[in-house]
Amino acid sequence: MAFHAKKLINDPNDVVTEFIEGLVETYPGLQYLDGFPQVKVVLRADVSGGTYDKVAVISGGGSGHEPAHAGFVGEGMLTAAICGDVFASPPVDSVLAGIRAVTGPMGCLLIVKNYTGDRLNFGLAAEQAKSEGYKVETVIVGDDCALPPPRGIAGRRGLAGTILIHKIAGAAAAAGLLLADVAAEARRASEMVGTMGVALSVCTLPGRVTPDRVGPGKMELGLGIHGEPGAAVADLQPVDVIVSHVLKQILSPETNYVPITRGSRVVLLVNGLGATPVMELMIASGKAVPKLQLEHGLAVDRVYTGSFMTSLDMAGFSISIMKADQAILQRLDAATKAPHWPVGVDGNHPPAKIPVPLPPSRSTKSDESLGRPAQLNAQGQILEVAIEAAAHAVKKLRDNLNEWDSKVGDGDCGSTIYRGAAAVLEDMQNYPLNDATETVNEIGSSVRRVMGGTSGILYTIFCKAAYAQLKASTQGVVTSKNWAEALEASIAAVSKYGGASAGYRTLLDALIPASAVLQERLKAGDDPATAFLLSSEAALDGAESTKHMQAQAGRSSYISGEMLASIPDPGAMAAASWYRAAALAVKYKYQTSS
Amino acid sequence: MAFHAKKLINDPNDVVTEFIEGLVETYPGLQYLDGFPQVKVVLRADVSGGTYDKVAVISGGGSGHEPAHAGFVGEGMLTAAICGDVFASPPVDSVLAGIRAVTGPMGCLLIVKNYTGDRLNFGLAAEQAKSEGYKVETVIVGDDCALPPPRGIAGRRGLAGTILIHKIAGAAAAAGLLLADVAAEARRASEMVGTMGVALSVCTLPGRVTPDRVGPGKMELGLGIHGEPGAAVADLQPVDVIVSHVLKQILSPETNYVPITRGSRVVLLVNGLGATPVMELMIASGKAVPKLQLEHGLAVDRVYTGSFMTSLDMAGFSISIMKADQAILQRLDAATKAPHWPVGVDGNHPPAKIPVPLPPSRSTKSDESLGRPAQLNAQGQILEVAIEAAAHAVKKLRDNLNEWDSKVGDGDCGSTIYRGAAAVLEDMQNYPLNDATETVNEIGSSVRRVMGGTSGILYTIFCKAAYAQLKASTQGVVTSKNWAEALEASIAAVSKYGGASAGYRTLLDALIPASAVLQERLKAGDDPATAFLLSSEAALDGAESTKHMQAQAGRSSYISGEMLASIPDPGAMAAASWYRAAALAVKYKYQTSS
Repeated sequence: MAFHAKKLINDPNDVVTEFIEGLVETYPGLQYLDGFPQVKVVLRADVSGGTYDKVAVISGGGSGHEPAHAGFVGEGMLTAAICGDVFASPPVDSVLAGIRAVTGPMGCLLIVKNYTGDRLNFGLAAEQAKSEGYKVETVIVGDDCALPPPRGIAGRRGLAGTILIHKIAGAAAAAGLLLADVAAEARRASEMVGTMGVALSVCTLPGRVTPDRVGPGKMELGLGIHGEPGAAVADLQPVDVIVSHVLKQILSPETNYVPITRGSRVVLLVNGLGATPVMELMIASGKAVPKLQLEHGLAVDRVYTGSFMTSLDMAGFSISIMKADQAILQRLDAATKAPHWPVGVDGNHPPAKIPVPLPPSRSTKSDESLGRPAQLNAQGQILEVAIEAAAHAVKKLRDNLNEWDSKVGDGDCGSTIYRGAAAVLEDMQNYPLNDATETVNEIGSSVRRVMGGTSGILYTIFCKAAYAQLKASTQGVVTSKNWAEALEASIAAVSKYGGASAGYRTLLDALIPASAVLQERLKAGDDPATAFLLSSEAALDGAESTKHMQAQAGRSSYISGEMLASIPDPGAMAAASWYRAAALAVKYKYQTSS
Repeated sequence: MAFHAKKLINDPNDVVTEFIEGLVETYPGLQYLDGFPQVKVVLRADVSGGTYDKVAVISGGGSGHEPAHAGFVGEGMLTAAICGDVFASPPVDSVLAGIRAVTGPMGCLLIVKNYTGDRLNFGLAAEQAKSEGYKVETVIVGDDCALPPPRGIAGRRGLAGTILIHKIAGAAAAAGLLLADVAAEARRASEMVGTMGVALSVCTLPGRVTPDRVGPGKMELGLGIHGEPGAAVADLQPVDVIVSHVLKQILSPETNYVPITRGSRVVLLVNGLGATPVMELMIASGKAVPKLQLEHGLAVDRVYTGSFMTSLDMAGFSISIMKADQAILQRLDAATKAPHWPVGVDGNHPPAKIPVPLPPSRSTKSDESLGRPAQLNAQGQILEVAIEAAAHAVKKLRDNLNEWDSKVGDGDCGSTIYRGAAAVLEDMQNYPLNDATETVNEIGSSVRRVMGGTSGILYTIFCKAAYAQLKASTQGVVTSKNWAEALEASIAAVSKYGGASAGYRTLLDALIPASAVLQERLKAGDDPATAFLLSSEAALDGAESTKHMQAQAGRSSYISGEMLASIPDPGAMAAASWYRAAALAVKYKYQTSS
């Protein structure tokens, strides 16, 4: 399979200069040299070579590894980054321009990944700069652990471990050290780090056709960051297995690439290759830490997870392990303004992260307030008949609701409501009916237990909002005004979280008019039972009126207005039904008990 | 085309919990609640609900958007993030656990992206928490600008603009504001921001087969972050055109989704959808800024470029634009410890970034020291004959060198060296021959001008290193000791940047023994010309000895030792040849002039 990669770019020849333009727009602290298209150098906006009083730390190489290297320019890390074209070493004159732009009397350190082109171009620029009187030191990083020694003249490739060298050198320079000392720290660190990569796909170069070398179900082990083939192709494994293999390879006593032995302290860097989601990188880090601790007997002092040294849009990651000591940790932890150095990663790690216990509910319910009271008081009796009437009413309406819903929705409205009503009736023997507020809360819990879907959660919200309102506004007895306010709060919550308003063809089209009439009648001085009953007529009218409304949500929104015209919204009808039944029961109870 | 996506994961059901485990290993300041697998809540390690004295800011939703939301937990941004399964809203109990874990007496603000599931689950949790006595406010963010109004009950989707709301609310809370004021700032900000996305591919869910809906050469415009289809499919365009289209859509006066008009100040957020390289995101930002300025008449105060709210491994980006004022900028700039909030993005932007002028060379060459002097002094005369002899010698060797190289390399060694020698002879009429140091430098420049490839740059390095050494060590006349030190420095530089050592079958196998003998004979008291001549015999012997060496680099490294046994390394032979010729010429000159 070969394909012309889709990329969000303009002219493939302009990707690096356009990248730099976007970079400096994003980061006010970064600048670039006026040498496009040949000279592509990103530097700190606050550094001018003639006067810079610290050792300048310069790195770079081919582009296509973003955010490396330009994203690591900033106080405390790189002073400048020299960008080549994609996967091509920058020419000598670019490197030289970068050196001249940021190097002051303290000199500069060039950190070069071990590739022939980079060595030669940075090398010649270094010699040229020296001949101009600059103090220049060069450290070449080759951290690849994928292939066994001897590696001959080419040596080991420079990979993501280089980022750690940038940080260590940058922090040493920021601390005011002399060039020789900054270089010595960088050189020492470069001997402490090993890296190995794994990829699921090959990167696609801008404007090129790239064959998918890896193939379905396969991965490449030990590859570089320029699309070169890996050391081996293998069947894709769970990342757990991959991480184990990579760690063993890096820490192999046979190659002896890194001086890490049981008991060593290490830092871990898991580096995405460009198209690897953060989720997958974090999973790899989460697996690598306990393996390093338990299988290799190492203390893991720092973990860096992210996409630092990528290979365009390659899917995969590399793992780097560096031997750590107090001096190295101090450099890694030192503050930096480099935009892509990870934040929040400093400071000591506990040997294992113990999760925080789940906090308890703050519910003030005491055991006494729970359960049906031995004797119901007047309010408790009214509440009981209202709940029973409401629940029975919607249970009876099941088939009608389902039939309406089958024409405008998914046909289960009646059954869902039925389940809720049945649960309320079943649980009612345990409701603390003399405490209306807590009873409303319990109804919410019953509904939540059995009613799924949107309607279940909306009815639970309805009850919980009423409960919160009643709890805040009542002391002991719940007045009719309290009930009216609770209904209003419930409607507001259902509207807010459900997203519907009046006229959206939902249960609110029954409840909103009911709430309005209830408040109006109570204010007008009607007795509560009468006001409730009158408001329930408004609920019925409101539910009927949904026949003429266009649906705004769910399946109904795809059905024509004409077809809907004869069918009420089943949710609104259900709401009107239980509300009406409760109102009638309350009115009857008042009449019979007074 | 349908394929089972390759992912670096273990069990697809565990991706979220394993992500969280890696996240808290990476960031010591983050913790998680002990409620796996149902409750997946990430929170600040330093916050405990009972005592937290600021407003807690809580967000979350389905997973698969990493680093959102957990990566934005930290002082100054989110206090906790509630993680659902991939693309599934977290259940009510998870939200509730998060609220309880971090909410103190000041209360909490829930920031919810506008999706039905999130609204309902966060909504019910909010009501439940209120009933437990917590102060809770909820702000629902719907920043999508892809589809025209009216958007009905579902409203506009919450997209990457939500990240800006997190930051603003988090900063307001960190500043000690009361809940109502934090909520008011968040609500106001949510009305200021608009977002639209573009994708090149569909995201692949862990463990699922995903059809490639988009297809080759196509892109989707106006899509969401859950793999839902976009508003339109179009032919892929240069990103310049895509950015223009997206900006126009967001700022459309017809939809009037954001209150941004000519003259407004704005912030720009370019958000990668998971598999988009930083390079491409920066290119989009770099194009968006001047378009906003010039085409829409806006001042761009801040630019945020990165992958903040992703959609697993989707290739593409979204652009968000928020109207900015001093109050909003202050919140966005406020310090935060949230690991994935971008750094280095605060502070004012100049209207346009003017690149830094290229720094001049620090070369101390004065015009007088350039060009051939009218009269050559004694040293100048010796230098002239040495250079001429050396150049003529390697010119004569061209065919032999090419023949040897055709057997062990790419066959052009002789021709390449010939070009360099010819250039030296041609340029020599302008060499400042009385100044040996500057002449060495000029030879390097001649070589660099005409010799390509590795050998060209290595010979340039050879000359430049010698020049730097001579310049540092000599005053006026160059002594034989200076020359010997210069040769040593040149060899060190070639070895360092070229990667070869003695025995690697390179020019160093001629030069290293020559350098050793030169130093030895000078120390022993030989006259310079004799010492030079003796050392040139060592160079010849060394070059001959390469016949028995296995190559370490280039094409030769693939050729068997037997086949190489009769052929010397052409590079070593060339070096021995010019060195020998120069030594003979110097010896002859000394003899004839003394």
